[in-house]
Amino acid sequence: MNQKVKQLMARKKLRVAGLMSGTSADGIDAAIIEFDGRAVNLLAFEMVPYPRKIQNNIFELFSPETSRVDQICHMNFLLGELFAQALVGLAEKNKIPLSSIDLIGSHGQTIFHRPLGRTVNGRKIRSTLQIGEPSIIAERTGITTVADFRPRDIAVGGEGAPLVPFADYLLFSHKTKSRVLQNIGGIANLTWLEAGGTPEDILAFDTGPGNMIIDRTISLMTHGRQKYDEGGKLASRGQINEKWLKQLMKNPYFRRKPPKSTGRERFGVQFTDELYRQFIKEGISPQDILATMTAFTAWTIAEACRRFLPAKIDEMILCGGGAWNETLIGHLRLQLPQTKVATMNDFGINPDAKEAISFAILAYATIKGVANNVPSATGAKKRVVLGKIIP
Amino acid sequence: MNQKVKQLMARKKLRVAGLMSGTSADGIDAAIIEFDGRAVNLLAFEMVPYPRKIQNNIFELFSPETSRVDQICHMNFLLGELFAQALVGLAEKNKIPLSSIDLIGSHGQTIFHRPLGRTVNGRKIRSTLQIGEPSIIAERTGITTVADFRPRDIAVGGEGAPLVPFADYLLFSHKTKSRVLQNIGGIANLTWLEAGGTPEDILAFDTGPGNMIIDRTISLMTHGRQKYDEGGKLASRGQINEKWLKQLMKNPYFRRKPPKSTGRERFGVQFTDELYRQFIKEGISPQDILATMTAFTAWTIAEACRRFLPAKIDEMILCGGGAWNETLIGHLRLQLPQTKVATMNDFGINPDAKEAISFAILAYATIKGVANNVPSATGAKKRVVLGKIIP
Repeated sequence: MNQKVKQLMARKKLRVAGLMSGTSADGIDAAIIEFDGRAVNLLAFEMVPYPRKIQNNIFELFSPETSRVDQICHMNFLLGELFAQALVGLAEKNKIPLSSIDLIGSHGQTIFHRPLGRTVNGRKIRSTLQIGEPSIIAERTGITTVADFRPRDIAVGGEGAPLVPFADYLLFSHKTKSRVLQNIGGIANLTWLEAGGTPEDILAFDTGPGNMIIDRTISLMTHGRQKYDEGGKLASRGQINEKWLKQLMKNPYFRRKPPKSTGRERFGVQFTDELYRQFIKEGISPQDILATMTAFTAWTIAEACRRFLPAKIDEMILCGGGAWNETLIGHLRLQLPQTKVATMNDFGINPDAKEAISFAILAYATIKGVANNVPSATGAKKRVVLGKIIP
Repeated sequence: MNQKVKQLMARKKLRVAGLMSGTSADGIDAAIIEFDGRAVNLLAFEMVPYPRKIQNNIFELFSPETSRVDQICHMNFLLGELFAQALVGLAEKNKIPLSSIDLIGSHGQTIFHRPLGRTVNGRKIRSTLQIGEPSIIAERTGITTVADFRPRDIAVGGEGAPLVPFADYLLFSHKTKSRVLQNIGGIANLTWLEAGGTPEDILAFDTGPGNMIIDRTISLMTHGRQKYDEGGKLASRGQINEKWLKQLMKNPYFRRKPPKSTGRERFGVQFTDELYRQFIKEGISPQDILATMTAFTAWTIAEACRRFLPAKIDEMILCGGGAWNETLIGHLRLQLPQTKVATMNDFGINPDAKEAISFAILAYATIKGVANNVPSATGAKKRVVLGKIIP
């Protein structure tokens, strides 16, 4: 079996699958690419939504109050099965034989992330927890799998996130143009690629909420009937409440210097529910709340660029679900007038597939023994090879 | 880095460390061995007790009611640090340079184990959960680490336990003597090695409680001041309550055919506390309760031998904490008159070190690409290479 690992190490061009589920826990992104260390050829992509019941079960794991060890144990294996099924299904639909896929990179589903750590006997213990058992994925597919990328970065003093900058650099760095890769998932994160820069020049961090607050607001507005604001249409009809917008901007996260990462712990259901109650109490209409939350989310991104990036941004390349929110993009264009704001589609890469592609690329590096964290992004003290290899 | 993995694969004789913490969560067993595929040379061994507070924290994780995702996430990394420290400390004390150790096999700390699974959409999902983040161990020691052995066996339909039979066979199988390796940890498990048998002849399963019930009883008797019955002295002073002993023997686990495994879910604190209350209510003295529990534990082992092993046992080789309980051993000798009951010490292997040695041996097999589960022991449908490799 490990003969196979040896052979993988020796080959340059590999067919690699990437599996990923983000903080929103919408479903599993599965991508199959061909990669030779620089150029990506996307062969197939699909987002397989979690069944509603599973999604609810995952949400229960996020919260210390409702989480239980028996459920975490069970869901780890159940999600492993679902991750494997997502890939098997994708390969079948696209007539790609599983046996032609050399390697899988699986991020799993984050259920907890404590990048700042907790102090024990004067020592800071950072931690993160992803589930979606990779032994199941490797066994069901018969493909060597690399998973659990975040812990090794934490082991060298990093926050374990963000990890995609490594892939961003390989795919998008440009000799004469400074670029920002802006992913807007549940949480939004950017990667700064300076014109002609090296990996050492990369800056990458979570700018703050992505779709997390917007999606929850919609869900509250529609009593769960709607999960997201399609195209940003609903937000476009509301009025921004400037008083509250200013209030929201005071959150200390936006002043904290990168590297930094955040998650559901800060901008999750609790945060939005509390705000929503206060807004309603003040007589603000749901549509105006949504408009304000959308403007706020856009501001967090623009503000991060203004405050922390060292030079003019020539191009901002959007990906993630938020790249379809026209109202959000409109705000970004207004707030960053010198920057060309485009979506990743314009660069020939399906933006929805970008995260999954990134974990395929990370797995490729791991199997090659190439260090694949970006210390300037995670705060790690050194470069390391991330992940666990399941032969 | 993975160059290193390649080199490991090529060498026959390796210096390997094994790290393990059992269901009792007493502490971390750390062993360093030299191994060439058959003969073990134990270079160093130590059991590093968990600090009391940590032990209490671990116990909180065992129970669905008191477990929380934030604690599980945190403790995974904290135990990773403690596992690493245990090995670093052992190496230092014995003047073995860390750089001379080629490989680590870490079992981690089981916090939940559901070998029979839970049915989801008509499909059985088995699961198990070990913590003690191996990325931390690999980083702190600079040694390639193999960990998380159980999930891959579960992926092929096994119960993920027991895993030590693979090591037992390599170390103890004999041409003319049938042997039982009997480990008495928190849970007790045996490995049947038929005289002149092959790996296919191995039977291995959890016989039932090991020290789990005895230790908890002592703790209740002494209000937490004593953790175990040293040498079985206290039990030797009590009277066995035959009525209750017969009652206890009715537990259906003892009739269930192997392969089977069990844990704290069945014979844990809840089980003992409930029994203890009932005994006390009936006016039975604490010493008599302990005597009965000790006789019961011995019976579960002897009964498993009588009921499930296919031939006469020439030798029973004891290891684990229970191998020091003279009262328990006395019961075993009485109940198995045709069998020579000895401790592993008599065979030149420190019985306390046996479990840690086993995980060093399992890691050796994984890195060599040798299938290292025993399907007749776990119920798995096929032989697989267990574990995740952290380069």
